[in-house]
Amino acid sequence: MTNQYEANLGRQPANFQPLTPLTYLERAAKTYPDHLAIIHGNRRVTYRDFWQRSLRLASALSQRGIGKGDTVTVMLSNTPPMLEAHFGVPMVKAVLHSLNTRLDAAVIAFQLDHAGTSVVIVDREFSGVMKEALAMASVTPLVIDYDDPDYPADAPHPKGERIGSVDYEEFLDGGEADFAWSMPDDEWDAISLNYTSGTTGNPKGVVYHHRGAALMAYANTIHAGMGKHAVYLWTLPMFHCNGWCFPWTLAIQAGTHVCLRWVRPAPMYDAIADHGVTHLCGAPIVMSLLINAPAEAKRDFPQTVTFNTAAAPPPEAVLSGMADAGFAVTHLYGLTETYGPAVVNEWHGEWDSLDKSQRAARKARQGVRYAALEDLAVMDPETMQKTPADGETIGEVMFRGNIVMKGYLKNKPATDEALAGGWFHSGDLGVMHPDGYIQLKDRSKDIIISGGENISSIEVEEALYKHPAVASCGVVGRPDDKWGEVPVAYVELKPGAVADSDEIIAHCRTLLARFKCPKAVVFAEIPKTSTGKIQKFRLREMARAG
Amino acid sequence: MTNQYEANLGRQPANFQPLTPLTYLERAAKTYPDHLAIIHGNRRVTYRDFWQRSLRLASALSQRGIGKGDTVTVMLSNTPPMLEAHFGVPMVKAVLHSLNTRLDAAVIAFQLDHAGTSVVIVDREFSGVMKEALAMASVTPLVIDYDDPDYPADAPHPKGERIGSVDYEEFLDGGEADFAWSMPDDEWDAISLNYTSGTTGNPKGVVYHHRGAALMAYANTIHAGMGKHAVYLWTLPMFHCNGWCFPWTLAIQAGTHVCLRWVRPAPMYDAIADHGVTHLCGAPIVMSLLINAPAEAKRDFPQTVTFNTAAAPPPEAVLSGMADAGFAVTHLYGLTETYGPAVVNEWHGEWDSLDKSQRAARKARQGVRYAALEDLAVMDPETMQKTPADGETIGEVMFRGNIVMKGYLKNKPATDEALAGGWFHSGDLGVMHPDGYIQLKDRSKDIIISGGENISSIEVEEALYKHPAVASCGVVGRPDDKWGEVPVAYVELKPGAVADSDEIIAHCRTLLARFKCPKAVVFAEIPKTSTGKIQKFRLREMARAG
Repeated sequence: MTNQYEANLGRQPANFQPLTPLTYLERAAKTYPDHLAIIHGNRRVTYRDFWQRSLRLASALSQRGIGKGDTVTVMLSNTPPMLEAHFGVPMVKAVLHSLNTRLDAAVIAFQLDHAGTSVVIVDREFSGVMKEALAMASVTPLVIDYDDPDYPADAPHPKGERIGSVDYEEFLDGGEADFAWSMPDDEWDAISLNYTSGTTGNPKGVVYHHRGAALMAYANTIHAGMGKHAVYLWTLPMFHCNGWCFPWTLAIQAGTHVCLRWVRPAPMYDAIADHGVTHLCGAPIVMSLLINAPAEAKRDFPQTVTFNTAAAPPPEAVLSGMADAGFAVTHLYGLTETYGPAVVNEWHGEWDSLDKSQRAARKARQGVRYAALEDLAVMDPETMQKTPADGETIGEVMFRGNIVMKGYLKNKPATDEALAGGWFHSGDLGVMHPDGYIQLKDRSKDIIISGGENISSIEVEEALYKHPAVASCGVVGRPDDKWGEVPVAYVELKPGAVADSDEIIAHCRTLLARFKCPKAVVFAEIPKTSTGKIQKFRLREMARAG
Repeated sequence: MTNQYEANLGRQPANFQPLTPLTYLERAAKTYPDHLAIIHGNRRVTYRDFWQRSLRLASALSQRGIGKGDTVTVMLSNTPPMLEAHFGVPMVKAVLHSLNTRLDAAVIAFQLDHAGTSVVIVDREFSGVMKEALAMASVTPLVIDYDDPDYPADAPHPKGERIGSVDYEEFLDGGEADFAWSMPDDEWDAISLNYTSGTTGNPKGVVYHHRGAALMAYANTIHAGMGKHAVYLWTLPMFHCNGWCFPWTLAIQAGTHVCLRWVRPAPMYDAIADHGVTHLCGAPIVMSLLINAPAEAKRDFPQTVTFNTAAAPPPEAVLSGMADAGFAVTHLYGLTETYGPAVVNEWHGEWDSLDKSQRAARKARQGVRYAALEDLAVMDPETMQKTPADGETIGEVMFRGNIVMKGYLKNKPATDEALAGGWFHSGDLGVMHPDGYIQLKDRSKDIIISGGENISSIEVEEALYKHPAVASCGVVGRPDDKWGEVPVAYVELKPGAVADSDEIIAHCRTLLARFKCPKAVVFAEIPKTSTGKIQKFRLREMARAG
């Protein structure tokens, strides 16, 4: 039988438009053109200017032939061009690829080639490593230098040399502020690319689409409780899952972005007190920095600031320290593959009256799905059956819905594996509590999270194995007050070989970004299973013990 | 050239799910099962119960063979079954058709037949007119009586007789609380059907889809500033554009619905004071009722209540009266075809410091597009060119985006006309101000808005023409302090014929719902153009003058 609700009721331009966060910025700029969109040092950018600068960027890219499916790579701090790139690049249907600013040249070169980069925008803070990476890479992109006029006077190191053929401002000057920007042809079209270190081998390129970014922006606004003209402090790197999609999110409420090149206590407190910051996000280390800031760095402020944190669950001491300092902490959880946070610890008012340890137990849980995520489960990955919601049976945390990535770029096997059986397999192990809240019980086993950054233990082990004296090794995270975790290497030397800790660490630094290098090397017999597999959990016990 | 971002990166269940508000209720019920979802008289329904009762309704419908594309018609007040129907009906992929509870039997019968109704759920308040309508209709639906146990003791009239074959509670008892509900096959699938009186002929059936309802729920939450556990008072009829989609909206924040059978001052103030209402919506008449309530009906309350109003712009006196009474008024605008409000008067903080008349001028404007609407324009419908944004040039207000209807049910010509040229033609005339805010200058010329209800003047004229003495007539709205507008009829009698006002009005009452009947009949020569077309604008001038 014909369905009467399907006859002559199809999609057409009047009633169907691709979902995209681009329309949010257009709306904010038209509605509140004079409202402050960006604060960066002494710079002030209104929504009119933010919109027009994004259009100029799009126009200038278009003049260079950049268009649908092209990749624009940025290596930028949390500065205005990074925000402009989040809109200007997709306005020409190109894809924004953000580089972690702490990567070494070899990984950057790999990403540039893998992504097929056409344009690079690089802050002069990173021109040294980018120059090196470009020398190693096969692609020959147009390189644009960003010379930040608000580079802090107290910068820990000077700007690097110019390496590009054009300066960012000059490039924008060549673009037109009334450029006819493009909606995506389809909301499924890619908007950005973020590489994850993954647990094995080369990094994987996670592709986001316009639909997911637009829906994530709604969900972020709602779950973070962002009201009109919220003021957001950029402590979370925008290269990290596109700053959990907050560059797009703020446009919905015409909020103000407060940029921050480095996460340091005094500028954070100054921004909060001077600009009325209402929201910020960050790893637990940012909370530690705020709480443990020297007295002269701290400032009083009247508002309660919402702090969204992810990675490790916040300990009760940190939560009460944050509350005393004027922050309300919400615990989120997600992965690069889920556009950043896709799970929120929805707090029940009545839990406030629980005793301290029960309250901490509730806070330690990752929580329930975002409104924009359609399903969240803990499953046995072999059978794809949900584990009992008993708070005890461990399974793999799985996600399903519109804020799960398109897949991994040019990596069908990894995409198929990650999305097998109709669910995204997170690799994280957890339990489902009887009330439907999930709790992680173990991080995906090979990942060390240090200062909010993922470090693949396998990558570090591969570097160690390149040292001629190393016979066997295992790298695990050791709990650390400042960084959350730091990598520690357990090493067995080859018979008769000689090496000391300093030498091994120095060797790693020739191969890896500094933050990935072991902070300590322990020479010991490596515990293995009968089949020769290294028993990581034993190493973790050893690391925790001492 | 192949686009690398399209290869092996397709939609699949892990990363693509149909947008639907059903998942919002599921999430609320799983996250906050014990939170209060519905207050109705002495009844209290938790989210667990709301979810399970919706599932029982879906299950019971399914047992009767109701499924995809079937129509379930409801004639219900703002009571719990109306909320349950908003979820239970689409859970079996059926379509919810809500009847205006003030319609007469002939129009109801037309709608039942046009919609092909399979099931009717009718409150016993309306069983009389429904019985009459069923006798006139060709369809023979299953009829379910809702016998409200919280029918107010001070009801203005008693409940009608039972006319159905089963009672609503009994029907639900037959359903299963763990029913396996269905996501829509496609987010474009119909979720509801709302008839508009339109300007000509028979009512048109506006079809909404899951995608639009889901996006509207996000936008409502954000634009109304609904925080977690918002408390919403049902003064706006849920049969009106599905209550502007607020039945679905509240599920996102696990808010509480406070039901209300009749809009009367004392129960409104009681609900606000006793249940901590944070939000309500309604036509200007609801504001008048609140402001002009007798002292003994008024109650003090500590919170500021957000009042969303549409239809006529609120006069400054009403706004200041509302502010004094503890309400913050937001002016919205939209049509049945746009899921209710799709335009919001986004208020700039600095406008607070304008003088009274300038502030009133700003408040009188309809505003800018909702975040979920992709474009809004004032255009010349002939050329489809945007009129200059000068605040003076009148054009037709046009909408484009994801909260524009699928189209009119079984009415391709009307759909094609309404969505011609890639825009929804509202029929409303307005101007675009230089700052991008729209303002209506004239309502679609044939519509009279009385007490928030649309009355088609043509429908009233058709009734008048059925009186044997009437030669020519024109019906227009006359400004009215209580109702906004009331219909007034201008009548020319046939030569030699005799009739008086009372007789003409009594005649109309045999054909039309009471609220549509003229409040006055003026016997006069009808001004016409040279081609014989009635000059409505002249009649409006006469009505205003007299």
